[in-house]
Amino acid sequence: MKKKISLLGATGSIGKSTLDVLRNNPEIFELVAFSFYSNIKLAKEIIEEFHPLIVGVCNQQMVQMLSLLYPKIKFIAKLEGLVAVATAKGADIVLTAVAGSVGLLPTLAAIKSGKDIALANKETLVMAGEWIMQAARKRCVKILPVDSEHSAIFQVLQGQDIKNVKELVITASGGSFRDLTRDKLKHVTLESALKHPNWSMGKKITIDSSTMVNKGLEVIEAHWLFGMPYDKIKIVLHRESTVHSMIRLVDGAYLAQLGSNDMREPIQHALTFPNRMFLKNEKIFDIANAFSLHFDKLDEERFPMLPLAFAVGRKAGSFPTVFNAANEVAVNAFIAGKIKYLEIEELIKRAVFKHQEKENLTLKMIIEIDKKTRKKVCEWMREKL
Amino acid sequence: MKKKISLLGATGSIGKSTLDVLRNNPEIFELVAFSFYSNIKLAKEIIEEFHPLIVGVCNQQMVQMLSLLYPKIKFIAKLEGLVAVATAKGADIVLTAVAGSVGLLPTLAAIKSGKDIALANKETLVMAGEWIMQAARKRCVKILPVDSEHSAIFQVLQGQDIKNVKELVITASGGSFRDLTRDKLKHVTLESALKHPNWSMGKKITIDSSTMVNKGLEVIEAHWLFGMPYDKIKIVLHRESTVHSMIRLVDGAYLAQLGSNDMREPIQHALTFPNRMFLKNEKIFDIANAFSLHFDKLDEERFPMLPLAFAVGRKAGSFPTVFNAANEVAVNAFIAGKIKYLEIEELIKRAVFKHQEKENLTLKMIIEIDKKTRKKVCEWMREKL
Repeated sequence: MKKKISLLGATGSIGKSTLDVLRNNPEIFELVAFSFYSNIKLAKEIIEEFHPLIVGVCNQQMVQMLSLLYPKIKFIAKLEGLVAVATAKGADIVLTAVAGSVGLLPTLAAIKSGKDIALANKETLVMAGEWIMQAARKRCVKILPVDSEHSAIFQVLQGQDIKNVKELVITASGGSFRDLTRDKLKHVTLESALKHPNWSMGKKITIDSSTMVNKGLEVIEAHWLFGMPYDKIKIVLHRESTVHSMIRLVDGAYLAQLGSNDMREPIQHALTFPNRMFLKNEKIFDIANAFSLHFDKLDEERFPMLPLAFAVGRKAGSFPTVFNAANEVAVNAFIAGKIKYLEIEELIKRAVFKHQEKENLTLKMIIEIDKKTRKKVCEWMREKL
Repeated sequence: MKKKISLLGATGSIGKSTLDVLRNNPEIFELVAFSFYSNIKLAKEIIEEFHPLIVGVCNQQMVQMLSLLYPKIKFIAKLEGLVAVATAKGADIVLTAVAGSVGLLPTLAAIKSGKDIALANKETLVMAGEWIMQAARKRCVKILPVDSEHSAIFQVLQGQDIKNVKELVITASGGSFRDLTRDKLKHVTLESALKHPNWSMGKKITIDSSTMVNKGLEVIEAHWLFGMPYDKIKIVLHRESTVHSMIRLVDGAYLAQLGSNDMREPIQHALTFPNRMFLKNEKIFDIANAFSLHFDKLDEERFPMLPLAFAVGRKAGSFPTVFNAANEVAVNAFIAGKIKYLEIEELIKRAVFKHQEKENLTLKMIIEIDKKTRKKVCEWMREKL
């Protein structure tokens, strides 16, 4: 029996790597449903290669157009489409590779319909970690991390009792601007921000790596995924990104996962867990060649978004949602050339500091706060322009 | 219920570290029996601190002397004493920290009486890996490694399926003479050989580290302990000894155990497995401080004992026994000032190359070959003098 996969966000960086894993193992995996946003050329190729049953698309016009071309496939637009992909009949596991808060409701729907989740959309846990983990526990659904850091921690946690874990140690490459002082950041360009030293990733996450917002989101994700208090999550600067992350145990031992920077490894691990299999065309990390690994303290004054992420994580409630929503709007504005690099941080800080927490939060309120934050940050940007 | 420990070789380096673990956790562990060779002062202190029931000593004279001092304790001499300690009534686990081939028979006796083994005596597996592992399987006895490298591999193997392991990667510091060319080795002194760059250990193992015989014995030990073919065991030079060893999985991921160079960690791990506990007075390896790790190819021409160990491991039968026995005699002679450093290698090579394998080997024959090899190497040394 093949493992049936639903893929949310098939045309992004993680989506493409996932398709490569499926392509290399047609005897193991079957793609039953996927969603995409705007890359229709690639979407058609995926349809013709993998013959899914359901495809989620961005609008009604696209539904009509594609239905004419592929009459046997069910096309559904917008959130309804994402949810249909996430709950596709027969799917064993849903890989959530959409970017941003749009991943939340489809992920929750997938959990409620009993699908295991391969989670590449960290915003889901950042916004609604409590609800997601509770729903997963209730349905005995596995949440399998795809982020390389969380996958590393997940891998070395196998066979260990979580109560014996003293700390999670998440490595950070430092991103594209790690060698620049704050003063030099004032006039950096989008082009230079998009040059990640170690990983080839999507635009937003590459910018998020340079501001350390990505590491901050990872801290909050790790908190929920592994049930680890924030005091026990440490960040260490590791320029090579070879050690993907570590755990420290009560007896002083550290366990680490390391290797080449190939996202197909954690993707395949999530899809095959608890088994592993040969990774075809792997970027081989050959230990027989000389190599060095460097670890250093991360300067929190240089990267103020990291302590801010810890602070919003500790405040909990809807603070992480505000932090994330402000970042998404700001980074998209920076990518669109509307604001300067350091204004990303300014907008996030303003959103977080102005936020007034509501009592008795529900998931609906969280989604409302996410929307309102986006609107407010957009307004602030317009006022300034 | 306290865990009852028998300790073979209490006054050596591993023995003392083991006693420190027991001393720090009197509510967890109880020492029921131990053996020692010649350090009677320390043995008396151990008796008075831990109140064991049985003590193995080196000769009959010592039995009489100590029986007068401690009439409630049973003292037994020589091999009989080691076996009595290894099979002590009530003992749950036997930690074998004696040096050399003398560990073999007591370890086998312990297994046959159903005790788990915390194995610090690698010669046991080098000489009789097949018999030992078979006996352990038959009695469902655990063989828990204490060597830091094997403990590291054992730790990261938890929760992994051994069939998904592509390679074991054992790290080697390179020992005291790692920066000397072979030419410079001709006139090195015992004093300089005993200065290990990273670990504080007994004399013999420190010399063995410098000749790489120790790493060779570890390769053979790993072969038996983890059922891993020699082609899948790699050695990598790692000057800091921070990464204690690694495994490489089929999907390209490496899992590593790392930390400070404190033998109490692997000792305590073996004694508490599958649990872990806080290591009191640990040498803290603090990841918040900057550190670098270096890995390099190990030069087999510089360290010819390593390929020789792989060769005797592959030949199997009694070849590893001959390799080990010749090394023990030669290293003791070097420590006693009777031979030069490079003569250790010469004697091992001569013993291995002259060895003629017997058919249908039994454990008795192995022990016989061990004795004969020692005798022959002693003769060669005498002839030369």
